[in-house]
Amino acid sequence: MAGRTVEELGEFGLIDAITAGLPGSDALRLGPGDDAAVFTPDGDVVVSTDAMIEDVHFKKVWSGPHDVGRKAVGSALADLEAMAARPVGVVVALSCPADTPADWVLEFGKGVREECGLGGAVLMGGDVTRGEKIAVVVTVFGDMGGRPPLLRCGAQPGDVVAAVGRFGMAAAGLAVLTRGFRSPGAVVRAHRVPEVPYGQGRVAADAGATSLIDCSDGPLADLGHVARASGVRIDLDSAAFDIGEAQKTVAAAIGGGDPLTYVLTGGDDHALLGTFAPDAVPDGWRVIGRVLASSADEEDAVTVDGTAASAESSPGWRHF
Amino acid sequence: MAGRTVEELGEFGLIDAITAGLPGSDALRLGPGDDAAVFTPDGDVVVSTDAMIEDVHFKKVWSGPHDVGRKAVGSALADLEAMAARPVGVVVALSCPADTPADWVLEFGKGVREECGLGGAVLMGGDVTRGEKIAVVVTVFGDMGGRPPLLRCGAQPGDVVAAVGRFGMAAAGLAVLTRGFRSPGAVVRAHRVPEVPYGQGRVAADAGATSLIDCSDGPLADLGHVARASGVRIDLDSAAFDIGEAQKTVAAAIGGGDPLTYVLTGGDDHALLGTFAPDAVPDGWRVIGRVLASSADEEDAVTVDGTAASAESSPGWRHF
Repeated sequence: MAGRTVEELGEFGLIDAITAGLPGSDALRLGPGDDAAVFTPDGDVVVSTDAMIEDVHFKKVWSGPHDVGRKAVGSALADLEAMAARPVGVVVALSCPADTPADWVLEFGKGVREECGLGGAVLMGGDVTRGEKIAVVVTVFGDMGGRPPLLRCGAQPGDVVAAVGRFGMAAAGLAVLTRGFRSPGAVVRAHRVPEVPYGQGRVAADAGATSLIDCSDGPLADLGHVARASGVRIDLDSAAFDIGEAQKTVAAAIGGGDPLTYVLTGGDDHALLGTFAPDAVPDGWRVIGRVLASSADEEDAVTVDGTAASAESSPGWRHF
Repeated sequence: MAGRTVEELGEFGLIDAITAGLPGSDALRLGPGDDAAVFTPDGDVVVSTDAMIEDVHFKKVWSGPHDVGRKAVGSALADLEAMAARPVGVVVALSCPADTPADWVLEFGKGVREECGLGGAVLMGGDVTRGEKIAVVVTVFGDMGGRPPLLRCGAQPGDVVAAVGRFGMAAAGLAVLTRGFRSPGAVVRAHRVPEVPYGQGRVAADAGATSLIDCSDGPLADLGHVARASGVRIDLDSAAFDIGEAQKTVAAAIGGGDPLTYVLTGGDDHALLGTFAPDAVPDGWRVIGRVLASSADEEDAVTVDGTAASAESSPGWRHF
């Protein structure tokens, strides 16, 4: 492959290289190579699709192809965790310029396969086409194994809000990369690849969670979805978040202040946020707030330490 | 919406507008609005993903947004027909520039929903993001209802090759559009929106088809996949294809000759090509060739009237 472009390798050569020796699974009935893939689900099927676009969601100078593959798959699989589904399969549509090095695509494919393995899913198929910028669309499938899906709309006043996973790491990483730095390494790595708490969606369901969401746009924005869907308010306890040294360093050096801003509004870490009866929080989850009866005013669906979050800390990620 | 851009409307405003009043289905358990969609399949689940990229697969000056939505969904659902699956659901990832008129996206959404309705599927979810060019990735899923999937690898010497749907129409349309013309209307419309023979995959399975594929790259290329997967040769009967007046007109005016070239090598019409015992061809399908024992020479996996297809009529669609 060395030195060859995707144009030289061709669509079918690329697909063969990416899918060589793909692992199977008990659920997978037919993998890549026919018109479509086939799997045998255990119960209802859960589906989500997520796009990652070059220079919108990632930059090639900041993230290698392996990172892009892992992040694209991980952020999509996090949506299955957020339903308490078991990840089963992944299909990937990749567009890239004809002069993209074939090695870039093969490393991307390795990242896809590695993250699939971490999540318990298998790569089932895909599409490779030409495009001016790299665009990755990952669609993921899971099954419920007889469970009902765990929705956003079941939070009850009296519940606590609990979380598993990281907050504000990827945002701090993006902040330093945007300013031309490459450290601290922990936050830069977090921007490149999320650490999805695989398996914890089912743990939350088994514990009796009343709602669940994955944190893609920051807890203020994502818990706003939960609060509005459930018709409740949520108050977060700022002292309950574990703010790491790396985020403090970044905030002091370039953020001009409070690392809590990254934690409350930073996306892309894909922690899970659930609501539970106070005595039902699973091991490994941290209580970060509580669910209150709703007021008529939707503006304060989520408060921090009892007060409305400031404007600069509330927008979440805007796609447009 | 008049005059507003997608940036002004915002991601959630766009999604709300596209998904307002979405139809449900018996299989759909949870539609758009949570982390993922949920459906209850009947038997094994079939999955395929397809990308359509602006200025690679379509041009905005040739195809309106409604056409783009219909074609993206239709070409993906054709892959489910080719497995003899029942279409169930569709998820769509759309990337577009921030200054795209909101009306473009809403008309695109209407096209998506119209084609879903024709195919018997429902729109279950999606993702809307920013990107420099419009990129559409449609992922479709269906179920087998207890049937085994109908693969490419079962063609047997002695079978006939039969087809349902159109050939060479979209390619003739692309040829005239490329040269700056807008007629004949029939072929231009065929380039814009395929006429997928919905339901005919299951008809083929019920008739005992030994293999099935959808024709996305032209019958020479696609039957080449069948021949190689099945370890057979295929000989096509050129006189068996129904060549319309529009294709003859286009070939005479700009192709410099034989309209059969469009028919044999033109993609994007999404006819179905199956192999059957000679007495098992379903009503409405046309016999276009026969399956022969394989030779060692893979170069002539598909012949026309007993001779190798000429070089200029054999490449099919190259993605790179």
